[in-house]
Amino acid sequence: MTTRFARRMEALKASEIREILKVTQRPEVISFAGGLPAPELFPVQALADVTQKILEEEGTRALQYSTTEGHPPLRSWIAARLAAHGGGRFTADDILVTAGSQQGLDLTGKLFLDEGDVVLCESPTYLGAISAWNVFRPRWVEVPTDDEGMVPEALEQLLGRHPNAKIVYVVPNFQNPSGRTWSLERRRSLMEVADRYDVFVIEDNPYGELRFEGTPLPSLASFDRAGRVISLGTFSKVFCPGLRVGWVAARSPLHEKLVVLKQGADLQTSTLAQMQVARYLAENDLDQDIARLIPVYRERRDAMLEALEKEMPDGVRFTRPTGGLFLWVELPVGVSARTLLDECLRHNVAFVPGGAFFPNGGHEETFRLNYSNMPVDRIREGIRRLASALDQLLLKRDNHRIDAGDVLAGGCQPPPSAL
Amino acid sequence: MTTRFARRMEALKASEIREILKVTQRPEVISFAGGLPAPELFPVQALADVTQKILEEEGTRALQYSTTEGHPPLRSWIAARLAAHGGGRFTADDILVTAGSQQGLDLTGKLFLDEGDVVLCESPTYLGAISAWNVFRPRWVEVPTDDEGMVPEALEQLLGRHPNAKIVYVVPNFQNPSGRTWSLERRRSLMEVADRYDVFVIEDNPYGELRFEGTPLPSLASFDRAGRVISLGTFSKVFCPGLRVGWVAARSPLHEKLVVLKQGADLQTSTLAQMQVARYLAENDLDQDIARLIPVYRERRDAMLEALEKEMPDGVRFTRPTGGLFLWVELPVGVSARTLLDECLRHNVAFVPGGAFFPNGGHEETFRLNYSNMPVDRIREGIRRLASALDQLLLKRDNHRIDAGDVLAGGCQPPPSAL
Repeated sequence: MTTRFARRMEALKASEIREILKVTQRPEVISFAGGLPAPELFPVQALADVTQKILEEEGTRALQYSTTEGHPPLRSWIAARLAAHGGGRFTADDILVTAGSQQGLDLTGKLFLDEGDVVLCESPTYLGAISAWNVFRPRWVEVPTDDEGMVPEALEQLLGRHPNAKIVYVVPNFQNPSGRTWSLERRRSLMEVADRYDVFVIEDNPYGELRFEGTPLPSLASFDRAGRVISLGTFSKVFCPGLRVGWVAARSPLHEKLVVLKQGADLQTSTLAQMQVARYLAENDLDQDIARLIPVYRERRDAMLEALEKEMPDGVRFTRPTGGLFLWVELPVGVSARTLLDECLRHNVAFVPGGAFFPNGGHEETFRLNYSNMPVDRIREGIRRLASALDQLLLKRDNHRIDAGDVLAGGCQPPPSAL
Repeated sequence: MTTRFARRMEALKASEIREILKVTQRPEVISFAGGLPAPELFPVQALADVTQKILEEEGTRALQYSTTEGHPPLRSWIAARLAAHGGGRFTADDILVTAGSQQGLDLTGKLFLDEGDVVLCESPTYLGAISAWNVFRPRWVEVPTDDEGMVPEALEQLLGRHPNAKIVYVVPNFQNPSGRTWSLERRRSLMEVADRYDVFVIEDNPYGELRFEGTPLPSLASFDRAGRVISLGTFSKVFCPGLRVGWVAARSPLHEKLVVLKQGADLQTSTLAQMQVARYLAENDLDQDIARLIPVYRERRDAMLEALEKEMPDGVRFTRPTGGLFLWVELPVGVSARTLLDECLRHNVAFVPGGAFFPNGGHEETFRLNYSNMPVDRIREGIRRLASALDQLLLKRDNHRIDAGDVLAGGCQPPPSAL
């Protein structure tokens, strides 16, 4: 039969990460590929306790339909948390509870993007935003970005060239994939430019609370007077991802439109999951939880940085994140991270080639490393293998061209969904 | 500031049901408006037991990211259930677990619909499909529908007139809103016509297992040889809606495309919720649960039909569903269900005017009644009030024009999300 899909399906392909992660399901593989938090730190027992209480005391309510906007105590908690942590002045009425912050991307894409509309983003940018928004067929304009954030002069120049640009999308804290954090000055500049060019800003902040050192910086939303910042958040990295609870904070009239879109998309987020998160937060101290996560992730980041410094050949550069889950590596010019990945998979080490994080392609010499999901000794061993694979590759390159393998082919189990 | 939303937002408005349901949050209101199952029948204790076991035995796995496709034991269970109940020959590999069947509508809309594409639907059709798909700006073509289902000659004629129609959308069992069930002959005919015109069929079956009498009929998918039927299902009506677990069954290549779209939309459905449903199904007997639901819902339907027969004035017609949650009422020509609703709300009775279920408007003399969420005595009292409001309205109509009230205005709590 003829398959007549929507035009949006032409450009859509399975995430490259998904294909890589299938391979990393094998236990012998040291994977720096996923974006998974460390499951040994999930507060399983405390969650079991509050779940039992919810089902005993208000079970029928927890299993029934509830509102599209979200569970009121959870919406209040989120608004208060944002206010207390420089996240912007949102009230509970501005909060829409979503199925993770990934759904916030889908809903904001639906709200703003017609075919051909310009999205300005960091270069590189979060792969999940690319996959959420490509269904709306936007035009991606990558803004030159350095260790301090987007370069404001470049942003202004590009906004001048694209005066109808709809949104600027940024991950200002411990960005996925680069691990970079925007300076205070760049945050302020971005909002000044956004005001001047009257463009919406989508601020995605899944990792902001996972700061290993230094002082937290105020969000873009905290500089927002016009109601142009839509702030996406999630419990996936500070609590657990399996419940799929996140939020979109946005003022009127954006909030009301997003609620209508959410109702069409899935009616509401799980009543029970929202009540679980709300009650967990009421009866436990999230700050204490985060204080337990941070030394573990910091130690893993340290181990990875030390190993990279020790093992990597000359000409390899990498970022030094002060929080979050990822760091970013640039190989010497002309060395392909995809070829390196093929080589590495033969040694049972995996990562994500950086090309996937550039919506307009290129940058094949870059890759992303995750350090949150592996213990320190596996991180050291993995970087050792990675360096040895790279050494071999550089050696071979000096002799003849590599015959790229097809290690990724073959029937493996589906991988975890994290991007 | 200028608000520059996507064009799709122009036509989008908040669901009328949401506005009505806000009013019905008041406890004194007898509501036939929502589509809520009876919460007193949820298996709360059994779910609490399996949840405790999951968190004890495999808690870290339950709270971690998992695959976009869904929890493997749940996918297998769904495929086996469909096979055993005339639901079509799908394998576990064809099942994508979704956030309720509402998400199945969003994903299939994304898969098929470009702006202006023709969707053929029953007349009336499910409001949730209208709200899910209107964001893709399709052209709705309502196919004349009687008590046996879509009229095949009318469908064929409309397909001849719209040879590029993308999908036919149907709810063959105890349809929302009409309560009607398609005959076997009409099911077979639809699939013959769909094969002849090479069109995809989306079969939405949330209520099929809630049959009060008579013999279950095979699904459209069971007649499908070409892989053109996409089958949507949910645990919301036979188990509970609060966990938001449903599915899309579709063969390759549709399944793979839907997985990519699901990943962009929300990565995956809650790992814990999927494990809860799977383990509940493994350790309990869903057929026994359904056997407990049916007499309760049957009794409520009977009470509503008896009350309608007794109380309604001449010229009012209503359907006699053999299962599901809804029945459908047609008022005498020229009487507006919206005006009747205003009158009814003054007497604390609510329902949904039928116009909302016709994507191209009209049919203001119809309305939908839900009987699953109210005990029998409240049903009798509610229909009495409704009939008395209608009597008053008919009396007034004979004298002068009604001054339509604005009972719906004002700041009430957000309503449950069910459509």
